[in-house]
Amino acid sequence: MSINSFGHLFRVTTWGESHGPAIGATVDGCPPGVPISETMLQHWLDKRKPGQNKFTTQRREADAVRILSGTFEGQTTGTPVQLLIENTDQRSKDYSDIMDKFRPGHADITYFQKYGIRDYRGGGRSSARETASRVAAGGLAREAIKAIAPGVRITGYMVQMGPHRIDRDRFDWDQIDANPFWVPDANAAIKWADYLDSLRKSGSSVGAIVEVTARGVPAGLGAPIYGKLDTDLAAAMMSINAVKGVEIGEGMSAAMLTGEANADEIRMGPDGPEYSSNHAGGILGGISTGQDIVVRFAVKPTSSILTTRKTVTKSGEDTEIMTKGRHDPCVGIRAVPVGEAMMACVILDHLLLHRGQIGENRGVIG
Amino acid sequence: MSINSFGHLFRVTTWGESHGPAIGATVDGCPPGVPISETMLQHWLDKRKPGQNKFTTQRREADAVRILSGTFEGQTTGTPVQLLIENTDQRSKDYSDIMDKFRPGHADITYFQKYGIRDYRGGGRSSARETASRVAAGGLAREAIKAIAPGVRITGYMVQMGPHRIDRDRFDWDQIDANPFWVPDANAAIKWADYLDSLRKSGSSVGAIVEVTARGVPAGLGAPIYGKLDTDLAAAMMSINAVKGVEIGEGMSAAMLTGEANADEIRMGPDGPEYSSNHAGGILGGISTGQDIVVRFAVKPTSSILTTRKTVTKSGEDTEIMTKGRHDPCVGIRAVPVGEAMMACVILDHLLLHRGQIGENRGVIG
Amino acid sequence: MSINSFGHLFRVTTWGESHGPAIGATVDGCPPGVPISETMLQHWLDKRKPGQNKFTTQRREADAVRILSGTFEGQTTGTPVQLLIENTDQRSKDYSDIMDKFRPGHADITYFQKYGIRDYRGGGRSSARETASRVAAGGLAREAIKAIAPGVRITGYMVQMGPHRIDRDRFDWDQIDANPFWVPDANAAIKWADYLDSLRKSGSSVGAIVEVTARGVPAGLGAPIYGKLDTDLAAAMMSINAVKGVEIGEGMSAAMLTGEANADEIRMGPDGPEYSSNHAGGILGGISTGQDIVVRFAVKPTSSILTTRKTVTKSGEDTEIMTKGRHDPCVGIRAVPVGEAMMACVILDHLLLHRGQIGENRGVIG
Amino acid sequence: MSINSFGHLFRVTTWGESHGPAIGATVDGCPPGVPISETMLQHWLDKRKPGQNKFTTQRREADAVRILSGTFEGQTTGTPVQLLIENTDQRSKDYSDIMDKFRPGHADITYFQKYGIRDYRGGGRSSARETASRVAAGGLAREAIKAIAPGVRITGYMVQMGPHRIDRDRFDWDQIDANPFWVPDANAAIKWADYLDSLRKSGSSVGAIVEVTARGVPAGLGAPIYGKLDTDLAAAMMSINAVKGVEIGEGMSAAMLTGEANADEIRMGPDGPEYSSNHAGGILGGISTGQDIVVRFAVKPTSSILTTRKTVTKSGEDTEIMTKGRHDPCVGIRAVPVGEAMMACVILDHLLLHRGQIGENRGVIG
Repeated sequence: MSINSFGHLFRVTTWGESHGPAIGATVDGCPPGVPISETMLQHWLDKRKPGQNKFTTQRREADAVRILSGTFEGQTTGTPVQLLIENTDQRSKDYSDIMDKFRPGHADITYFQKYGIRDYRGGGRSSARETASRVAAGGLAREAIKAIAPGVRITGYMVQMGPHRIDRDRFDWDQIDANPFWVPDANAAIKWADYLDSLRKSGSSVGAIVEVTARGVPAGLGAPIYGKLDTDLAAAMMSINAVKGVEIGEGMSAAMLTGEANADEIRMGPDGPEYSSNHAGGILGGISTGQDIVVRFAVKPTSSILTTRKTVTKSGEDTEIMTKGRHDPCVGIRAVPVGEAMMACVILDHLLLHRGQIGENRGVIG
Repeated sequence: MSINSFGHLFRVTTWGESHGPAIGATVDGCPPGVPISETMLQHWLDKRKPGQNKFTTQRREADAVRILSGTFEGQTTGTPVQLLIENTDQRSKDYSDIMDKFRPGHADITYFQKYGIRDYRGGGRSSARETASRVAAGGLAREAIKAIAPGVRITGYMVQMGPHRIDRDRFDWDQIDANPFWVPDANAAIKWADYLDSLRKSGSSVGAIVEVTARGVPAGLGAPIYGKLDTDLAAAMMSINAVKGVEIGEGMSAAMLTGEANADEIRMGPDGPEYSSNHAGGILGGISTGQDIVVRFAVKPTSSILTTRKTVTKSGEDTEIMTKGRHDPCVGIRAVPVGEAMMACVILDHLLLHRGQIGENRGVIG
Repeated sequence: MSINSFGHLFRVTTWGESHGPAIGATVDGCPPGVPISETMLQHWLDKRKPGQNKFTTQRREADAVRILSGTFEGQTTGTPVQLLIENTDQRSKDYSDIMDKFRPGHADITYFQKYGIRDYRGGGRSSARETASRVAAGGLAREAIKAIAPGVRITGYMVQMGPHRIDRDRFDWDQIDANPFWVPDANAAIKWADYLDSLRKSGSSVGAIVEVTARGVPAGLGAPIYGKLDTDLAAAMMSINAVKGVEIGEGMSAAMLTGEANADEIRMGPDGPEYSSNHAGGILGGISTGQDIVVRFAVKPTSSILTTRKTVTKSGEDTEIMTKGRHDPCVGIRAVPVGEAMMACVILDHLLLHRGQIGENRGVIG
Repeated sequence: MSINSFGHLFRVTTWGESHGPAIGATVDGCPPGVPISETMLQHWLDKRKPGQNKFTTQRREADAVRILSGTFEGQTTGTPVQLLIENTDQRSKDYSDIMDKFRPGHADITYFQKYGIRDYRGGGRSSARETASRVAAGGLAREAIKAIAPGVRITGYMVQMGPHRIDRDRFDWDQIDANPFWVPDANAAIKWADYLDSLRKSGSSVGAIVEVTARGVPAGLGAPIYGKLDTDLAAAMMSINAVKGVEIGEGMSAAMLTGEANADEIRMGPDGPEYSSNHAGGILGGISTGQDIVVRFAVKPTSSILTTRKTVTKSGEDTEIMTKGRHDPCVGIRAVPVGEAMMACVILDHLLLHRGQIGENRGVIG
């Protein structure tokens, strides 16, 4: 309960449950004068929308976003922007078989333990459906970033699905939009399709790792000590459903490096300092260096699988459950646009925060 | 700048630089009636204190903490607690050789780019010295937790140093306090000592992974969607100096698991639901399950090494630097009590938050 | 821009403009298990609704509130409650005569100076229409208070209109709902009707003072130093459109009293301490005493009057304006339910905050 | 407890009790590069310091402020500034006569009811001594304002003491620093001296009204709807000890005006829009107009008087108390520099906030 908001100056509050009439995002702190339309936002929602191919859930949602406030004559006014998405596919299905059972790996049990309420109509507030609201807010953030720091480009993609990693030597930005996995490696895309199709047919699921890169972010963003850029990104990504780990730059592998191997040496380039490598993921001391910001997060496999699992009922009896229904064999795929949205919100927030606190007076080297 | 605070209801603001007169923590929101003394807090500061063995920096700081406010007759009053630690070892050394150079891997360059100020006397605000303030605040949090949820036990330990991991089959809680690495594996402690001694002599450094476990945390803590328990822990750990990755439960490895392998099945035990495994790390949907909360974070190797590195000066000239001085070959060691402190602050914060929002009325199973 | 939210744990974010498709409130932090329905909220909205008698604006809005999230089977779930009110009476009128002129006394000019945007379709975000969202949120707060502190009763009423004050000796709680001014003095109601009718016909307007009393509030609420109960109430009331002053207890008149005259002496009553008087308005040191909480606020006269006033255009030319249209001769009347709503939100917020921070352990006298 | 902070981007947390070792302010969010010294801050603390003449308490505190962090080579660095003031005059007096009694009009009773703690050594956290920390923080805010908006001038002064008001026709800015009451009316200063001397001798006390004016504040500051400039000022002033009412511009008297009398007409001047009057107190819709910002607040009379009053003990017995000791016959006098400090903090906060959210792009008229 509470704390359904994130961001310091660009503040997003999401609301709504998977089976209520609507979900949405109340966005406070968007600068005025940003050109915006429902069409612009819809582009990003369509990227996340379920049911687009056989690899994602067959739940069919139009995910049509409406802007209810905060704009006038096609641009933001500086007042709160209300983004509303109706829930159109709330099947009036029979919940009697799961009404009193907790689905293992889902938040059913902890939501009940916390709130004393059992909303048995699917995940309710804990459903990944909530992330549609984030994508809408992220779309707005992207447009605002364009107005403030036009060079920034934010791109998410998958780098691992189950045991299969991409080949970094084959990394190709242009491949990302060319396959259903947003994977920057054409070979991987082909292999993963076979792998996932097989998993899907067996009713199983698998985890994944998503990477999001922000290019063109100016040096100097981040608010040490507790609003560091990496701190805020870690929170943003960990708040996404099913995420169990977050890495910046070398991430967990930094543990295996020596100081010599990990250091990013500096030299002067034509436009300021340049680095010989980017082990740091573009962030030093919580502040952007001007290099690419590189964040990765791991998404666990969907807990809804066609295998019977042991569980308990609300009244405390041992039982079993098999989660039928329309689910994703690899939710990591649809987490890609969500990760991008969170990156966009955090970058915009720190652009505004930096301006508020430092003005335009930064230290210039050289 | 700004945002030197964390926590929702138990709110900690740290202040101070490595070479100023003092550092400290302003702690707001500690419940009244918690027994507290400087001696109690000193216990935890001594655990983090440098110069205790050859494996940590030889900088000598008494790290004596004083309580300047918020207590009366040996207990907290509910008003802000000011914890002050004087800096006693600010060597008036000659900085002329690094005054205008940025140390690679350190935040010198980004702090300058952000603030336009070059505080050349060591790390200033970005120094790991700041973490002493966190440890003091964490000590207070531990005492408050005792009063509210006496069963909670928070323990940090190292699980990896460079390429060397612990053997999970040899995990022994009792070993943790028996070696300078707080490693729960007696064999590892012996091997690591040799390994690190050799690194130290060569002037190199190495990364590490620290794990922090909280046992006895009641089910129901965590504030979805953006104040989830894992979200707040990710932010807390990522805010520690040199941390590049954070994991909950399976962490990044969750990407490699299938739904069947990852699920934690549930059955009724004598005191409520029990789980057959803990892949989730004690958190589902951002809310504690009652199992152990398990968090890991990776600490990068110290960037201060005895190898010359390329860098630039404030005026934009290419140059080289070798960071002499008193540094840690593996800063991960001293990050252990810091990770514990952050865990304590987050757990206390969520105990208070849960009470504020739900009262004592939780859903009970069975 | 931004900061369209208030409250610490019961957090209300309002959104929407007078001439957009809808307005509403996103309410985060409402405890779970509170019985709620659209009908319950509609009761309070109807109290504020315009066009109910000749003394309020003839704009006709259904002000029908919809609950889009946060409830299940008739009670709150602990997740965000979205309250939406459609704007039905957005007359497509001709704005050409005021499009480029700033209305004196209105926020047209300052919104333009701040945001660089001129939303000429009425007040936009600065319109008093925004207060309907507050009333909806306040209705929810009232129901939550009932569940936590059932003895609390919150009542607003007018105590002054223009030069006419109520006679405190004739104060009668039962009169409040018996007249269009919510005035607790039957004689005043009659006189004020004549006075206001005359003003209305002349196209003029007048200010007012509203008092809101909360009875049955337990002792101990309030978070010194900067979240004092009176501090939060002052902010809450001053944030209402057209409010220019806020008083607690004696208010501004406290300046004229001596220490002897102002002191509220204490004696033991059957249920704890009692006070001989209530100059303090139920708050000492920012914390409730258990007496009635008494707040007053002054509402300035509507600036929209049928008299021509001097003003300037966007391009900087001197001009004149006369604001025609449907307006309130005394906006103070409709501020009564708004003041009640703000009181309800603040009281609930502090009930939750107190519980979070102190638990149930308060000091008991006797 | 908790919420000992105020401000959005310029965030001040005060800490400390009247009888502990020290008090202070942790200031987060001060921009870097602001020239600052202990001497600069001491100037403002000396203005508030007790014991300077017979009209203020004879408690003698050096009130010497130390800067413990956040500066380097005479200017701020953008990191938290810790301002510490030692308590030097903590008389080890005999408290046995008041140890178990609650002083009427003081917060002794409510602090006990809230926290369950009876700190009998004077006011503890609720003592007006806390305001010294605000004055220190306000001094820093003034210097930061100079750097951002050099034309701003903030001046506090008394306009009423007991029944005696100043004559507005005799208002003279130059008189303010020329008398012990900071009253802008030389005649009033003479009369008030006699009046207060007589009160002081009789052991009585009296209330006062303080006005604070900020001149030269640019148009466009303020964050509607809940961070309006007047909302934040109302909270800031109401949070000061003993304050019972806050007014902006016409304040409570706005209730008595008609729309015609209250409107501030607009015309173009050489530098932009000008107003024919300032009933609004420089704020429309929560946003500054560019006119003088005018705030008034009423301070109640000190409750510590030489007259015996009825009260109760901790154990619930009726008793009497007479508060001896060193107190102010009119605490309103020493509230003048406190009101100025709060104004400075709020103005700076909104300068930063506006810059963060709008950048430098404001709407320009003409």
